[in-house]
Amino acid sequence: MFRLDAAFVRTSHPIAELRLCAVRLQDDARWPWLVLAPRLEGAREIEDLAPDDRARLMQEIVLAGAGVRAVGAVLGLAVDKLNVGLLGNVTPQLHAHVVGRRDGDPAWPGPAWGFGAPEPYRQPALARALAAAADALRG
Amino acid sequence: MFRLDAAFVRTSHPIAELRLCAVRLQDDARWPWLVLAPRLEGAREIEDLAPDDRARLMQEIVLAGAGVRAVGAVLGLAVDKLNVGLLGNVTPQLHAHVVGRRDGDPAWPGPAWGFGAPEPYRQPALARALAAAADALRG
Repeated sequence: MFRLDAAFVRTSHPIAELRLCAVRLQDDARWPWLVLAPRLEGAREIEDLAPDDRARLMQEIVLAGAGVRAVGAVLGLAVDKLNVGLLGNVTPQLHAHVVGRRDGDPAWPGPAWGFGAPEPYRQPALARALAAAADALRG
Repeated sequence: MFRLDAAFVRTSHPIAELRLCAVRLQDDARWPWLVLAPRLEGAREIEDLAPDDRARLMQEIVLAGAGVRAVGAVLGLAVDKLNVGLLGNVTPQLHAHVVGRRDGDPAWPGPAWGFGAPEPYRQPALARALAAAADALRG
């Protein structure tokens, strides 16, 4: 049975359940940042997915890009470039990060993953970001 | 007309032309590391690709994972985890990095992208790595 790794529960907030992935908002208001986790027990690498699910993961990553832009609008942060990363060195359960980057952001042009300390959302920004992302994910 | 960005020409060696992507070996022997660039003029984000090409990019990323494992075998470096990244903050032409990571590698568990200074290949390791990767990409 699939269970989302506790690390994601701790560091992110649920937005939506797409056909393949649980989609969550990374609890770090420095960047508009979504995390997608395919609901497939034991998957660690993309190659662990069936070909159809690989294509679906890519489509859901693209959809998450729209969610990231919507969260960026809520935060008042420009999105000059989307960054997509599937790492899993710390939390091996297969997941994809989709992060909205801007020229001059705290880690620019380096990767955002693992950079500095997260800045958790406060209300009402969190509720607004979750609502905007959910809206964008409805496509 | 598609032209590979000069940054890739400078920092990597050609391995193969897949149906969508030019596949190259990153000239950094610290990690087995392949770079894929879809041969589509003007593409910067995954969303710029037609749905079929998005699925194909994902399949070619998976294939590149096999290439990375083959290069890891040549270098004598274990591949505990594949890392896939589409960033483009420095070189916006759409491209994907597929990097073989190992517990305890120089940047572990952080991202390899932008970490420290590359260690260019020497011969005969370069020729062996290119041949092994090309072989693995034939599937």
